[in-house]
Amino acid sequence: MDYNYNQEDKALVAVDCIIFGFDEDDLKLLLIKRGFEPEMGKWSLMGGFLKKNETLDEAANRVLQTLTGLDEVYMEQLYGFSKIDRDPVERTISVAYYALININDHNPKLLDQHSAQWFSIGDIPPLIFDHHEMLNKALRRLRRRTSTNPVGFELLPKKFTMRQLQKLYEVILDEELDKRNFQKKIKQLDVLVKLKEKDMTSSRKGSFLYEFDKEKYEKKVSDGFTFKM
Amino acid sequence: MDYNYNQEDKALVAVDCIIFGFDEDDLKLLLIKRGFEPEMGKWSLMGGFLKKNETLDEAANRVLQTLTGLDEVYMEQLYGFSKIDRDPVERTISVAYYALININDHNPKLLDQHSAQWFSIGDIPPLIFDHHEMLNKALRRLRRRTSTNPVGFELLPKKFTMRQLQKLYEVILDEELDKRNFQKKIKQLDVLVKLKEKDMTSSRKGSFLYEFDKEKYEKKVSDGFTFKM
Repeated sequence: MDYNYNQEDKALVAVDCIIFGFDEDDLKLLLIKRGFEPEMGKWSLMGGFLKKNETLDEAANRVLQTLTGLDEVYMEQLYGFSKIDRDPVERTISVAYYALININDHNPKLLDQHSAQWFSIGDIPPLIFDHHEMLNKALRRLRRRTSTNPVGFELLPKKFTMRQLQKLYEVILDEELDKRNFQKKIKQLDVLVKLKEKDMTSSRKGSFLYEFDKEKYEKKVSDGFTFKM
Repeated sequence: MDYNYNQEDKALVAVDCIIFGFDEDDLKLLLIKRGFEPEMGKWSLMGGFLKKNETLDEAANRVLQTLTGLDEVYMEQLYGFSKIDRDPVERTISVAYYALININDHNPKLLDQHSAQWFSIGDIPPLIFDHHEMLNKALRRLRRRTSTNPVGFELLPKKFTMRQLQKLYEVILDEELDKRNFQKKIKQLDVLVKLKEKDMTSSRKGSFLYEFDKEKYEKKVSDGFTFKM
C-alpha cells in the first residue's frame, strides 16, 4: 500500500447544502444565483469551502446560517462527490448536506442579500456542476428518512393540520395518499397531540391543529418503538 | 458568502475501507497492522490517499483490491470524517466506505503481505484514530441495509444453508432469531431457489442448499416489491 502522497494530491474540500422547506402545498428548495464565473448567473446550491479550523459539520452549519440566519435545524451529511472535473476551475471534493427547515423561520432579508430564492421541487431550474445529482440523492434520502423517522415534522410549523401533514408526505413521497388510510396510520403511531385550537383559514368549520409530541416519541423509541409511515 | 480560499485550506483526502466478511459463524472485519509512526503496531482499517486523477469510489476500490485481490464487490460510501486533529500528522479528511465480501473469495497471500488479519466483530482490538467511530457507523448502516435490501447475500457463498442465512442475520442484527419465524419470513420474500443439492457437513441427514435468485428479485422490485427482514 502506498502511504506516500504529494502535496499536489491535496484537494479543495467544499460543502454544499440542499436546503428544503415546505410551504403548506409544496416541497421547496433554496437556491442562489451564482455571481461569478464560471457559470455566472446560473442557479446553484449554497456552498462554501472547508476551512482549516472547522469540521465538515461546522462548515455546513456556517453556510446554512449565512443564508438563512438559522442554526440548530435538522441537517444530515449526505454524500461525498468527487468527479475529477466536477468543478472546472480546480479539483474540489464536495461533501453535500441536506437540511430541513420550517420555511417561516428563516430570515428573508438574507435571501435578497445572496440573490437566493425558493423553488418548488417540481420546477427546479438548470443547476451548476453536479448539483442536480446532489439534489436527487437528497430527495431519495429524504424519502427513506421520512418513512422511518419523524424528520418530516421539522418542515412543518409547530402546530399543523392533518391536511398539512398529509400534503407534506405526499410531496416528499411524490404520490397521492388515501386520506382515511393516512389518518389511521398516523393515529396508530400515537405520537401527536390533538389541540383544542383550530386553524380557521382553510374552511368555515376549521381544522383541528396538532403538535408532534417529541418527548412521547422518544420515550416510545426507548421502549422499542419504530416509526413507520 | 466567502468564495475565496487559501491554498493552505486544501486538505489531504483519504479513503478508509471497512471490509466485512462472514465465515459461517461470525461477522468479521479485516484490519491491517500499521507499519509506521504514529501509532505503529496498532490495528487500522485499510486506507489510502485520494490521488489527483481518481474519484473517491475509484480510490476505495483500489484500496480494497490491493488488500483482497477483489473488485466488483458490494461497496458503499459511508460518511466523511473530518475532526481537525483526527490524523495527528496533517489535516486529513477521510471518506469511509464499507464493503461486503465473501470471505472465501479473497486472496489470502495478500493478507500476509499487508500484515492483515480477520477479527470477529465481537473481538475488535483497539484501532487508530477515529476508526472505531467509522466501524460503528458502518455496523449501523449494515443493519439498516440488510433489513431493507438483500445485501446480506453478498457475504454468503453462492450456495448456502438456511442455518447459515439465519446465522448471518443474527450476527448482523446482534440478536437471536426464532428459527420458525425466520424461515417463514424468508419463504414469504420468495427470492430464494431451493436446490436439490445438500450440504452434508453439518449433519448426517444434510441440509438443503439455497441460492439467491437475483433476477427474480429484480423483477419483483420493478413490480413494486420491497425486501423486508
